[in-house]
Amino acid sequence: MLSPDKQLQTIERGAVEIISEEDLLKKLERSCRDNRPLQVKAGFDPTAPDIHLGHTVLLEKMRQFQDLGHEVTFLIGDFTGMIGDPTGKSETRKILTKDNVLKNAETYKTQVFKVLDPAKTRVRFNSEWLEKMSPIEVAQLGAFETVARMLEREDFKKRFKSHQPISILEFYYPLFQAYDSVALKADIELGGTDQKFNLLMGRSMQKATGMEEQVVIMMPLLEGLDGVNKMSKSLGNYIGINEPAFEYVNGELAGMFKKVMSVPDSLIERYFELVSRITVDALNALKSGLKNKTIDPRDAKKDLATELVTRYHGREAAQEAAEKYCAVFEKKDLSDMASTFPVLEVSAGSTENAAWLPQVMKDAGLVKGTSEASRLIKQGGVKVDDKTVSDAHMKLGQGEHIVKVGKTKFYKIIITV
Amino acid sequence: MLSPDKQLQTIERGAVEIISEEDLLKKLERSCRDNRPLQVKAGFDPTAPDIHLGHTVLLEKMRQFQDLGHEVTFLIGDFTGMIGDPTGKSETRKILTKDNVLKNAETYKTQVFKVLDPAKTRVRFNSEWLEKMSPIEVAQLGAFETVARMLEREDFKKRFKSHQPISILEFYYPLFQAYDSVALKADIELGGTDQKFNLLMGRSMQKATGMEEQVVIMMPLLEGLDGVNKMSKSLGNYIGINEPAFEYVNGELAGMFKKVMSVPDSLIERYFELVSRITVDALNALKSGLKNKTIDPRDAKKDLATELVTRYHGREAAQEAAEKYCAVFEKKDLSDMASTFPVLEVSAGSTENAAWLPQVMKDAGLVKGTSEASRLIKQGGVKVDDKTVSDAHMKLGQGEHIVKVGKTKFYKIIITV
Repeated sequence: MLSPDKQLQTIERGAVEIISEEDLLKKLERSCRDNRPLQVKAGFDPTAPDIHLGHTVLLEKMRQFQDLGHEVTFLIGDFTGMIGDPTGKSETRKILTKDNVLKNAETYKTQVFKVLDPAKTRVRFNSEWLEKMSPIEVAQLGAFETVARMLEREDFKKRFKSHQPISILEFYYPLFQAYDSVALKADIELGGTDQKFNLLMGRSMQKATGMEEQVVIMMPLLEGLDGVNKMSKSLGNYIGINEPAFEYVNGELAGMFKKVMSVPDSLIERYFELVSRITVDALNALKSGLKNKTIDPRDAKKDLATELVTRYHGREAAQEAAEKYCAVFEKKDLSDMASTFPVLEVSAGSTENAAWLPQVMKDAGLVKGTSEASRLIKQGGVKVDDKTVSDAHMKLGQGEHIVKVGKTKFYKIIITV
Repeated sequence: MLSPDKQLQTIERGAVEIISEEDLLKKLERSCRDNRPLQVKAGFDPTAPDIHLGHTVLLEKMRQFQDLGHEVTFLIGDFTGMIGDPTGKSETRKILTKDNVLKNAETYKTQVFKVLDPAKTRVRFNSEWLEKMSPIEVAQLGAFETVARMLEREDFKKRFKSHQPISILEFYYPLFQAYDSVALKADIELGGTDQKFNLLMGRSMQKATGMEEQVVIMMPLLEGLDGVNKMSKSLGNYIGINEPAFEYVNGELAGMFKKVMSVPDSLIERYFELVSRITVDALNALKSGLKNKTIDPRDAKKDLATELVTRYHGREAAQEAAEKYCAVFEKKDLSDMASTFPVLEVSAGSTENAAWLPQVMKDAGLVKGTSEASRLIKQGGVKVDDKTVSDAHMKLGQGEHIVKVGKTKFYKIIITV
């Protein structure tokens, strides 16, 4: 095991707040002395997961603890998912069955084990202990906290003030979550900054039951591709870890590599700090390199994109995605990169207009319809084999053609007889 | 069965509020038509009971329902008693064990069966169904109500505003109680006016579970002997149903008969309405008699005292208590009533001062000490055999003597050699 000080350096990386550093150091010291790994807990929603880079901020921190030799519990809060809560929500929360929960857990595993070390991860469900409680024990959890204190939680406070309904059941969720820390005898709980209230409740419930309090480590919420809002699926500013290394959407390059390349320059350091595994020294070198402009942001992003695509899809896919990216965005001469473009084969005789350029563009998905294609051609926005086309009546001849729309949409069209 | 209208007349007697009369009439009509008794629920605390007349307001209403042919459940809320709640209370609430609960239930029964018909009473414990709930079902009860709505309850509102702690568990008590109505399929729930919030929650939880809503009947809180505050043990203004028909406390007549006689005249009608079983017609006659002064309030109270003492101690005890009362408070000539007084035998030779009047008074408990006795004698407040004594050195001679202190303290003293 590394020395407590060395461990601390890793643990602190990217963390917004640690409550408390002093307790953490004490736990690390005792862990080293007794050669006893710390129990690290992080809780996850039981709903069908679709993990994006924002989630991996926490997962990477868990992975760091695994690499430091500690025991990490990936806790699925299935119990609360099986309760549901019809009130106080804009959408009705779906009640999960045991089957749903187990299915979701499998989906979770295939995703999170791309970050976590499966051999060092305990996947647990809080129904394991919460379902075994007696009704009296469940009720007694309510004695741990007061109504006033619960209403201090930001979201509850807001809703209470604006007269939005809060069901009493919602007050029980943080209590259940806090009890999870008691049941797991957690030394450390990881969570987002938005979870502070709940994380601290775990700490105080442990204390109330005569247990040593867990240390709470809060990680920031990663901003999404818009550079402003936190990454989320609903805002569309996310990079899903299940997204392909590359794909073409209507002739336009997309996928994970391309998305990482579109991270705003202002967030490069932050992404490296939170989701890359480069060392702290390398991170510091990168920071100063970007600052004094000895490192081109685009190169830094290529490194990041390569690291991330390699993690989620392997080295080969990363290399291929990088090539595609360069072909579209960096090569002047397209001909020698044509092999990387999406392909459409057209049989010229199949219909009267099969080889008509606007029809081909429509069939390839480069445009929505032939009239849009005709307009683009008249505006000079379409090239065939690197030459701008002006005749909207043009038909493609037999053989291979590169059709380019605007600057970033490409298709290789093969016209056969 | 009586007609719904006739039943309604009985049910409405003394009730403060019925929610709703319309629903009640519907239930009564259906009950008559189908010859199916209604299920009537009333809940009681599981703590060691010491029932006073104030409690019997509810019990008498339950009894009326029994007499009308309906089924009455005396529900002991043992589940909540087994939870306890250390927060939000000035005193720590004692957590009851199963044993406590059963013992208390027996104490309850011996008391309440003086009012209720044991053959027509179902004694139930809410642990019967609440303990069988799964943790998920317990939690889901919380979804029935919102925090804001719960804080509308008077006591919660007050405490919340004055920053006194309310534990989240306390929010669950009304939910459990409401669920009892679901479990019992109650048609009617009886309770005090202070229970309105909880009673109505039972109604709404039944509705939420697709059940017909219970009718809520609220009985008033009976004022105590001070004529102002509600009857309660802690205020000392109560008449306990276990109090003896009569007793002497330090030579002074006490007990149930005497206490009923000390009810303020302003409350006579109210006591008759709420805890007597005279008919509605007799009640109306009493009211007008008191109003036009054809009935002496003292006579009315004697009737009430006789009725109540008969109920709790039998006819003979009531007669004896009435005699004792008349002897002390109504007879001018004490001699022929001396047989009803408390007796102390004194052996004159046992100590030097054994027959000395102040010593005798002290030994009888009429005064705290001989100096108080001497002072009273000098003030002319002590009579022996109907003659005022002025000599504090007086010794009683052999034989029987009536010693009277003030107007209402008496002792028969028998001096032997």
